[in-house]
Amino acid sequence: MKPVNPIKIKKGMKVSELVEGMSKMGFGAGKIAKASDIMTKMFEDKECKVFLGVAGAMVPAGMKQIILDMLDNVDVFVTTGANLTHDLMESIGEKHYLGDEGADDKKLNKEGIDRIYNIYLKNTVYEKLEDFFEKNFKEFQKCVSIKEFLWKIGELAPSECILKKCWKKKVPIFCPGIADSGIGLMIWGRIAAGKGKTQVDVFSDMNEIIDVAWTAKKSGIIYVGGGLPKNFIQQSLQFSKGATYGIQITTDTPQPGGSSGAPLKEGISWGKMNPNAEFVDVFCDATIALPLIYGAVKK
Amino acid sequence: MKPVNPIKIKKGMKVSELVEGMSKMGFGAGKIAKASDIMTKMFEDKECKVFLGVAGAMVPAGMKQIILDMLDNVDVFVTTGANLTHDLMESIGEKHYLGDEGADDKKLNKEGIDRIYNIYLKNTVYEKLEDFFEKNFKEFQKCVSIKEFLWKIGELAPSECILKKCWKKKVPIFCPGIADSGIGLMIWGRIAAGKGKTQVDVFSDMNEIIDVAWTAKKSGIIYVGGGLPKNFIQQSLQFSKGATYGIQITTDTPQPGGSSGAPLKEGISWGKMNPNAEFVDVFCDATIALPLIYGAVKK
Amino acid sequence: MKPVNPIKIKKGMKVSELVEGMSKMGFGAGKIAKASDIMTKMFEDKECKVFLGVAGAMVPAGMKQIILDMLDNVDVFVTTGANLTHDLMESIGEKHYLGDEGADDKKLNKEGIDRIYNIYLKNTVYEKLEDFFEKNFKEFQKCVSIKEFLWKIGELAPSECILKKCWKKKVPIFCPGIADSGIGLMIWGRIAAGKGKTQVDVFSDMNEIIDVAWTAKKSGIIYVGGGLPKNFIQQSLQFSKGATYGIQITTDTPQPGGSSGAPLKEGISWGKMNPNAEFVDVFCDATIALPLIYGAVKK
Amino acid sequence: MKPVNPIKIKKGMKVSELVEGMSKMGFGAGKIAKASDIMTKMFEDKECKVFLGVAGAMVPAGMKQIILDMLDNVDVFVTTGANLTHDLMESIGEKHYLGDEGADDKKLNKEGIDRIYNIYLKNTVYEKLEDFFEKNFKEFQKCVSIKEFLWKIGELAPSECILKKCWKKKVPIFCPGIADSGIGLMIWGRIAAGKGKTQVDVFSDMNEIIDVAWTAKKSGIIYVGGGLPKNFIQQSLQFSKGATYGIQITTDTPQPGGSSGAPLKEGISWGKMNPNAEFVDVFCDATIALPLIYGAVKK
Repeated sequence: MKPVNPIKIKKGMKVSELVEGMSKMGFGAGKIAKASDIMTKMFEDKECKVFLGVAGAMVPAGMKQIILDMLDNVDVFVTTGANLTHDLMESIGEKHYLGDEGADDKKLNKEGIDRIYNIYLKNTVYEKLEDFFEKNFKEFQKCVSIKEFLWKIGELAPSECILKKCWKKKVPIFCPGIADSGIGLMIWGRIAAGKGKTQVDVFSDMNEIIDVAWTAKKSGIIYVGGGLPKNFIQQSLQFSKGATYGIQITTDTPQPGGSSGAPLKEGISWGKMNPNAEFVDVFCDATIALPLIYGAVKK
Repeated sequence: MKPVNPIKIKKGMKVSELVEGMSKMGFGAGKIAKASDIMTKMFEDKECKVFLGVAGAMVPAGMKQIILDMLDNVDVFVTTGANLTHDLMESIGEKHYLGDEGADDKKLNKEGIDRIYNIYLKNTVYEKLEDFFEKNFKEFQKCVSIKEFLWKIGELAPSECILKKCWKKKVPIFCPGIADSGIGLMIWGRIAAGKGKTQVDVFSDMNEIIDVAWTAKKSGIIYVGGGLPKNFIQQSLQFSKGATYGIQITTDTPQPGGSSGAPLKEGISWGKMNPNAEFVDVFCDATIALPLIYGAVKK
Repeated sequence: MKPVNPIKIKKGMKVSELVEGMSKMGFGAGKIAKASDIMTKMFEDKECKVFLGVAGAMVPAGMKQIILDMLDNVDVFVTTGANLTHDLMESIGEKHYLGDEGADDKKLNKEGIDRIYNIYLKNTVYEKLEDFFEKNFKEFQKCVSIKEFLWKIGELAPSECILKKCWKKKVPIFCPGIADSGIGLMIWGRIAAGKGKTQVDVFSDMNEIIDVAWTAKKSGIIYVGGGLPKNFIQQSLQFSKGATYGIQITTDTPQPGGSSGAPLKEGISWGKMNPNAEFVDVFCDATIALPLIYGAVKK
Repeated sequence: MKPVNPIKIKKGMKVSELVEGMSKMGFGAGKIAKASDIMTKMFEDKECKVFLGVAGAMVPAGMKQIILDMLDNVDVFVTTGANLTHDLMESIGEKHYLGDEGADDKKLNKEGIDRIYNIYLKNTVYEKLEDFFEKNFKEFQKCVSIKEFLWKIGELAPSECILKKCWKKKVPIFCPGIADSGIGLMIWGRIAAGKGKTQVDVFSDMNEIIDVAWTAKKSGIIYVGGGLPKNFIQQSLQFSKGATYGIQITTDTPQPGGSSGAPLKEGISWGKMNPNAEFVDVFCDATIALPLIYGAVKK
């Protein structure tokens, strides 16, 4: 048995030193350190295909740059339509703002401000989004899969963003629930206005993600939040040898039985996680945990 | 100010009496009572269109019958592909089993048992699902929207289930993330086996749900869990007058900023919730809260 | 393996029928049913000493009557000073009120209203408490143990309350943290005003609770919330054969490592829980869970 | 409105830079930064008396050194008997060990290992504790207040620890629930063995903590977890001008109504928190949050 070694905070301490100190600690701190260790292995293992699933309003909260940087090590990216919408908003020049979770929502509503916990955005941002989709709708009508559609948005996005980086680096973005997002609304708006139809098939991307899982010698998973991104990766892993590495960051707990809070261990019964895998469940707000973990990976 | 009146538990007490007793209590108990009151109003208000969103593995946990019964009062039903897959599994004669969340997942894996917290299902259930989709694939290939596709499954399902009831009663089921489910896998399997293509359009159902929201004099929302079902209804409500009645049942908390844990109040800033709405956030496992609430609604 | 049997909500359903229905369900519902079953066994087993620990502001929320009724089946009662203070407040004729957790606390402060989540109390209640302690201080000065002191309050309390019932029925109340409460403040107030000293010894009650644990053939534990009440019972059980029956109701989760969220199973390592015990962790707001569980016990 | 500025993780980044980056983020990250800012102000404000409350098994988890270092800036320290017992265990040469929360508790029990989530300790540690208390019992019998008793333990403890530092620096430690701890058990053991009585009065420390609150020009609170330590400080603050600065770190949520999860804002209604105070609720495992926050304070 290894003894606990209390962490000592020093002046000018580096993030990597802090996380190294956490590796001798229990509770959540030890898990942060373990996650950092597993992420490093996952990124360094040439045989490993990395699946990154991101749920929650991570882009509005200020996690865009970390996701952008992590994409250099990611083979498959799955996220919500909301995150991609907020990513595109920033690409077309709009901003998210620091707000207050205790604000008067009736007042915000009158002022045209939409609230996401302690983040604000101006309702007028949707007008700019409309311009973008109006201008490029014909291009989008050609797309037959969600991935292709999202890459096309990335190609046409006016400045650096997650969508553009995925397009540039040919990282597949899967987003089965894209209709459930501002981007979905923009497409609906064009169709409803009689501008024509789309032909994006619901099941089109399944073959590709399953194929990556199926052919990978090893796979690693990183779940930032749960939701559809986690579940969509998990179901593909049923066709793999089971993930070799796993990191889950969430504040959902197992007791209510939902997929988002299910510990990675549960995946072993399904064959989604390899029985010999290295994995860790980090019970923490991702905006706190991921910068720490990734900060230690970057060293 | 109304005084708290401590609840008195009596022999042979009815569920409706228990919830009536809770109406004079604080903390979560008072919210159960309030939710029951709001659900009653929502169901009795002829001008109100009721949107029910269900996330989480509710069917495996034994909530299928409550959902079936509530569908008599529901105008729009949004759920996850997982719930519909489990619903179909039961319709074709398969079962879910009471299990143990502390089980040895490696052992379960060897025994061919998949675990969802404390519920088990046999892995062989997927073979029967395959037969169903193999047999009916041509029918499914004709469908051009997810709703149509799901109604078709309901029509063809061998026995009573949520899908069949929605088809029979023409309750629209929206499930934007259907690819992320066992049903999605079944369709992928057929396509991958060269049985032909599908033509279900990703954005096809958006117009209908937005149209219901847009034309409704009043709307009421019931969120069992968050996830995509909640968010998809919420985004449609932006095109309504804002919901008049609202009930949310979840154990997600607001602090990590995700949509699933966001209190209904936040929707006021977006115009999804009417500033004068009656609504309540119930912080509770839905398998405990919904039977109680609905039990008091049925009286 | 026993199949899940979906619960059917019927008109006029009894609480006991609802909980019986939950016994065939997964997730939290199944645990409610299991807790009800274990509580029944614990109460009916003549050889079993029942330890009830209650943390959280249960009296303000309206749980006083349930605690009063459960005391008929309880051998040792451990709670917080806060609950006993609120119990005494009601005994001297004061009330708690239904409030709003979103209230403006600055405004409440100006109005002399103290808030406990969605419960209010008037600040003036402390004046009446002072009268009670001023009047009876000499009696309290004679007490040498916390239990004796609390029984004395019960004896002198003007109307039926938890304290009085414990005194009448000679149910020992242990409250090691009594200084941390309004009752503690009242005693401090008298001492600070020069009315004399007290002689209640900090360690005085330990022998009695450990003796009950040590001599019990069997023991059963019911934890409503965690905190000091749970921990104080747990530490006594180290001197028992390990509890035979166990029920824990809390919304704290194990991951942050605190005693309040620790699953009962952890107690097996310490010898606090018997390896063959029947026990269940219910993850739920106690104001919802306990009325349900106890309602099914009363049948 | 200030825009969100996504954090950029750099190689060799310092903890203070990470937290500085978080100050432009939403959700929990922004709160970490705010907590760090408030802690700095609290420590630098010469007029401010700092109250530190620590609940949860922080010493076993490896937080002892941070607490030791923070004591240089603390005027009143309140914690659980458990933390002080674990502190003393380490002082007499025993260790805590890194373990596994999924361990077989029956097996651990047979091996004489006690589990605290993912931390282990050997049951034999209690024998060494007994020797310490047996040897020094006469000294402890002289103590008439809990603070005095704890300082005496610190004086006699064989090596550096929290208790010793508090004694050396004359930082008052208040621990109303001391009977509820291994230290309590040790005293009980001596009394039960007929070694004599103690004379520690239950209410003895109240005057001192209230006096600090009453006379402080300003006060600052740091709550690591909730429980009795938070509540005991909160009740003393009713006699202050209300805290000027506040930091709360917990994973308890407000909805179930308990004191541990109550947001600091609620204290405004009671007069415990000044209406103009700067405060923040950090929803995070303290073993993750506090090293980060304190790391940025140390710069």
